[in-house]
Amino acid sequence: MVQKPSLPKGTRDFGPEAVAKRNFIFDKIKACFQYHGYLPIETPVMESLSTLTGKYGEEGDRLLFKVLNNGDYLADVNQEDLSQKNSNKVISQISKRGLRYDLTVPFARFVAMNRNEINFPFKRFQIQQVWRADRPQKGRYQEFYQCDADIVGSDSLMYEAELIEIYNTVFTALNLPVEILVNNRKVLEGIAETIGAQNLFIEMTVAIDKLDKIGWQGVGAELLTKGFNHDQIEKLTKILDITKLADLEPWLVESEIGLLGIEELKTLHLYLDKISLDQDVKLDLKLARGLNYYTGCILEVKAKTAAMGSLGGGGRYANLTEVFGLSDVSGVGISFGAERIYDVMEELNLFPPNVLAQPQLLIITDDDCVLDGFETAYKLRKAGIAVDLYPSPAKFKKQMKYADDRKFAFVLIIGIQEKEQQKYALKNMVTGEQIAISWDELIVKFSK
Amino acid sequence: MVQKPSLPKGTRDFGPEAVAKRNFIFDKIKACFQYHGYLPIETPVMESLSTLTGKYGEEGDRLLFKVLNNGDYLADVNQEDLSQKNSNKVISQISKRGLRYDLTVPFARFVAMNRNEINFPFKRFQIQQVWRADRPQKGRYQEFYQCDADIVGSDSLMYEAELIEIYNTVFTALNLPVEILVNNRKVLEGIAETIGAQNLFIEMTVAIDKLDKIGWQGVGAELLTKGFNHDQIEKLTKILDITKLADLEPWLVESEIGLLGIEELKTLHLYLDKISLDQDVKLDLKLARGLNYYTGCILEVKAKTAAMGSLGGGGRYANLTEVFGLSDVSGVGISFGAERIYDVMEELNLFPPNVLAQPQLLIITDDDCVLDGFETAYKLRKAGIAVDLYPSPAKFKKQMKYADDRKFAFVLIIGIQEKEQQKYALKNMVTGEQIAISWDELIVKFSK
Repeated sequence: MVQKPSLPKGTRDFGPEAVAKRNFIFDKIKACFQYHGYLPIETPVMESLSTLTGKYGEEGDRLLFKVLNNGDYLADVNQEDLSQKNSNKVISQISKRGLRYDLTVPFARFVAMNRNEINFPFKRFQIQQVWRADRPQKGRYQEFYQCDADIVGSDSLMYEAELIEIYNTVFTALNLPVEILVNNRKVLEGIAETIGAQNLFIEMTVAIDKLDKIGWQGVGAELLTKGFNHDQIEKLTKILDITKLADLEPWLVESEIGLLGIEELKTLHLYLDKISLDQDVKLDLKLARGLNYYTGCILEVKAKTAAMGSLGGGGRYANLTEVFGLSDVSGVGISFGAERIYDVMEELNLFPPNVLAQPQLLIITDDDCVLDGFETAYKLRKAGIAVDLYPSPAKFKKQMKYADDRKFAFVLIIGIQEKEQQKYALKNMVTGEQIAISWDELIVKFSK
Repeated sequence: MVQKPSLPKGTRDFGPEAVAKRNFIFDKIKACFQYHGYLPIETPVMESLSTLTGKYGEEGDRLLFKVLNNGDYLADVNQEDLSQKNSNKVISQISKRGLRYDLTVPFARFVAMNRNEINFPFKRFQIQQVWRADRPQKGRYQEFYQCDADIVGSDSLMYEAELIEIYNTVFTALNLPVEILVNNRKVLEGIAETIGAQNLFIEMTVAIDKLDKIGWQGVGAELLTKGFNHDQIEKLTKILDITKLADLEPWLVESEIGLLGIEELKTLHLYLDKISLDQDVKLDLKLARGLNYYTGCILEVKAKTAAMGSLGGGGRYANLTEVFGLSDVSGVGISFGAERIYDVMEELNLFPPNVLAQPQLLIITDDDCVLDGFETAYKLRKAGIAVDLYPSPAKFKKQMKYADDRKFAFVLIIGIQEKEQQKYALKNMVTGEQIAISWDELIVKFSK
């Protein structure tokens, strides 16, 4: 039976060039992490549903991919739940595992489980895929990579500064101009206090978080429905437009938490003043970060020369591992949005031309010299030169077309004539020039 | 609510050292593949169940991890199947996707889907995880990596030779002595013919495949139950002990397919005679390979100095993509058993001592010099020197213990005294020696 091959919706294959381009980004990020003393970990693709459920809000629970138990999975399911087709109640009876939804929760679980072996502060990085059952659309997939670095076990603001420096270093290495936006959740809490809305803090941040998408008009409308009055909204608008700490401070003099936030931002700047960065770092009071587990400084990165959402973000969280039984472990982390970085780099044409690591040289032979071709390939590789070889007797034209399609820079031709003269024919596939070349000359030409 | 963090059975976390060791193996394999012109691809973790089902036999279907459809997945399920708790019938109604079971079937799907963009012969490699719901036990996990290289679109035996050369190169680079065993499925078919059991060919290979585990006595017993007689089994035992092609040939003179197999092995040796290998390559007629899609040469790698099953295997298949509607595409491929290679290398202590890429140098400071420490770390990194920095004011003893636990080779101490004298204190953590060192000396010492 022949079947039409297809991919599940929301997933993608990656051909050689796409893999090479993605690895180009990963390698820059990884090198920078390692350079700063971050250590790699990897966690399983499947986590227990009990680890994942309830960590990402109601929508997150819905978007988790659940894995069916193996064997006779229906045997012990409540008959009533089944006959009522109660999908929700049945889930926990037929599925114990789900696919990783982000790298943060698995990391928190890892830290809690390995607390006795870990040397704190623990600096870890993790570059792995995650899965979300979002409706697929342009630029949004159900399977995608995250690249995270976190430090847990220290509340030093030095790490916020280090992470900003890492963002700076990576985006400079990628030749991608960005703005690094900084804010502080305590400052936002202070602002909520100042406008008399401290009990609406979460509602305020959730609304502000949408500014990019729906503008002040939309945000204002949302705030009104949440219980803010016009006066508060006007004041909020005015405060959030402030771009300098010194201008903000007078507004927050009566908020203890607000002043603490300002203090944190000042300390952060003491560190940043010691170093020089290529990318812009800006205070942006309108930066809120949707995730409510952030408790201190928050960060976000935006491309300067391309219309694209956030290329990365992160922040300080006081208590990520508490749910797994490990309290008082402060942490801070950042994430690179690899898929978006990829798209922006494509748009701006920033990938190097030879990003795909393949040999420069292809050997082709005539029918009588196939074995000689194989021997020559072997000897070149022994000499440290990467090389490919056309496999079988085939028409010269066909072999040259293959060389062209695969974009080899040079073709080495071995035929009876070349064998007799102990010289190879080397054709430059860009210029078309063809020369006779001896073994020794060949080694010199292609040795690094 | 606090929960006890745990992992699903059969899965593992990988800490920094394990990740580094695994990458050490992957990097050697990957470099060798690329050196020979193989190109990387990646396929999604989830495939359509229609792609996976029926490809791995009945047991394979059972061991596939199935992913639950999202949303109200029970809504359209047949009520009778539900009330009968018919797990099998319900599966296809509540699950459309499964986790990748190997890399071969996704590769075949990829080739069939991208046939118009691919330049044949297509040399691809793929290093990704696969999942099997096997009962977990020592050394067997439900999530593990496979490292495959395949060529499709050519029937040249040059590729069998190239793949043997790749096995040779990788295991030599890993410093791991192996035997590379070679056989041919056509030869085995010829042997079945010769002993008058051509219609029991599959039964014969399935039984031979168990020789390692159950010995000749067990295999003989199995063959008897499958319909072989004592005379055939005796003859088979005698033939399979042959170690030279020349000794085998007289047995197969009347089998057309057997002679074809011998011809293939001879051609393979014409190629192998052109090169010199560090590892042993041996004809082993007892090598059968369980998978029935092999149609020509088959390969298997065994460690010479450790009791461990196969470290890799592969072979020629005539028609892998046919089920996806693409016929007459011959291919050949090999796989590295990364988990077993890892275990053998641990057992033989073959990983280099500094396999974990981390900075050599940790900066520690006293309370007044935290900002100086941050600045120094920044400047060292700018100068191309990887460095880590202890985060916060902390007791000297605590910082030194951290340096020790994290196995930094050197600690750079910055205190008021060092700052005033414009000299750093550099402590060698192995010898305990401590010296005063200037900035310039520091750069020279740690620059590559």
